Amino acid sequence: MARLILHEYGPSGNCYKIRLTAAHLGLRMERVEYDIMKGETRTPEFLTNINPIGRIPVLQVGQRFLPESNAACFYLADGSALIPEDRFDRADMLRWMSFEQYYHEPNVATLRFWLDYVGADALSELQRAQIPAKRLAGEAALQQMDDHLALRNWFVGESLSLADICLYAYTHVAEGGGFDLSLYPHVSEWLARVSALDGHVTIDG
Amino acid sequence: MARLILHEYGPSGNCYKIRLTAAHLGLRMERVEYDIMKGETRTPEFLTNINPIGRIPVLQVGQRFLPESNAACFYLADGSALIPEDRFDRADMLRWMSFEQYYHEPNVATLRFWLDYVGADALSELQRAQIPAKRLAGEAALQQMDDHLALRNWFVGESLSLADICLYAYTHVAEGGGFDLSLYPHVSEWLARVSALDGHVTIDG
Repeated sequence: MARLILHEYGPSGNCYKIRLTAAHLGLRMERVEYDIMKGETRTPEFLTNINPIGRIPVLQVGQRFLPESNAACFYLADGSALIPEDRFDRADMLRWMSFEQYYHEPNVATLRFWLDYVGADALSELQRAQIPAKRLAGEAALQQMDDHLALRNWFVGESLSLADICLYAYTHVAEGGGFDLSLYPHVSEWLARVSALDGHVTIDG
Repeated sequence: MARLILHEYGPSGNCYKIRLTAAHLGLRMERVEYDIMKGETRTPEFLTNINPIGRIPVLQVGQRFLPESNAACFYLADGSALIPEDRFDRADMLRWMSFEQYYHEPNVATLRFWLDYVGADALSELQRAQIPAKRLAGEAALQQMDDHLALRNWFVGESLSLADICLYAYTHVAEGGGFDLSLYPHVSEWLARVSALDGHVTIDG
């Protein structure tokens, strides 16, 4: 595989997903850090050379650049046991990765970012007005996960897949956004199951 | 392949993506229609049997159910020419599919739904307050697409992939949400290119 460089912001769960995937695969990846609080991903250099959308993570593979956390995880894991061999299960893994980006991350991760990083006092009026809806939507996403995990150890099939890795990233730090994980016992057991695996790395690793 | 049934709402671009994918692959798929304006995807039967999240589309494959449009398109196209053979390109296709669900659909599709289906007068105060931000974000997504297509005929590689199909679905009806497609000439040319392909079907087909 070509040289791998992760352009990232350490505390971001979207970046952590990629590091956790690489760790489980035993892949070596260089890391370049940008402080998103200082706008370091919105500079002309970043927009021209790394990602025209001005967002991290971006996985650099040789001279090519791959934005979007799900895509980067898929690139790294393509052909490995982290992607199910069964055709339906493979699509079902993508289903949970879409769920994470559409129903979970915009609520659970955004409230963590707003409340734990930006700070409640620095939010705009429109952001503050969105908090109750994001709270409800985030709780609904966690409840969906809990219901799904009531009868299963892993999101898809019988072992860890990218679906687990991608959902773990922001769920395990959801309390930073004011979510009470003790309300979701199956999620809590699954979090412990993921973090106990050989090859696991922490978000601050 | 097992019997395929699409649980859907016809005007939804997320459902259309799956029909367009199936059309290009020559796959036969039955269709079951739900009127989301009447809450037909929130009934106990739907939540228990089809999708606990209460959303369409859901692709039924035999007795298994697959929510999320990107996942359903991937299931249908797995192993076909609609998914690039090259490893980086395959991930890059997923990158644009993630872009669509994260940056495009919540803005371009939501404004179309709010303004063209729900109606401006029926929106809540919070929804109305979000319109300017969704307008700007939707325009930014269309501009990103236009910039990308300035030097390319297709989003990834040298032919149609799921990235084009997924982005086509809500872009070609963006004017229903008040977006002016004449501002994005490369997008307009690409829309014409997609709709001229053999196997194309329209959203109302």
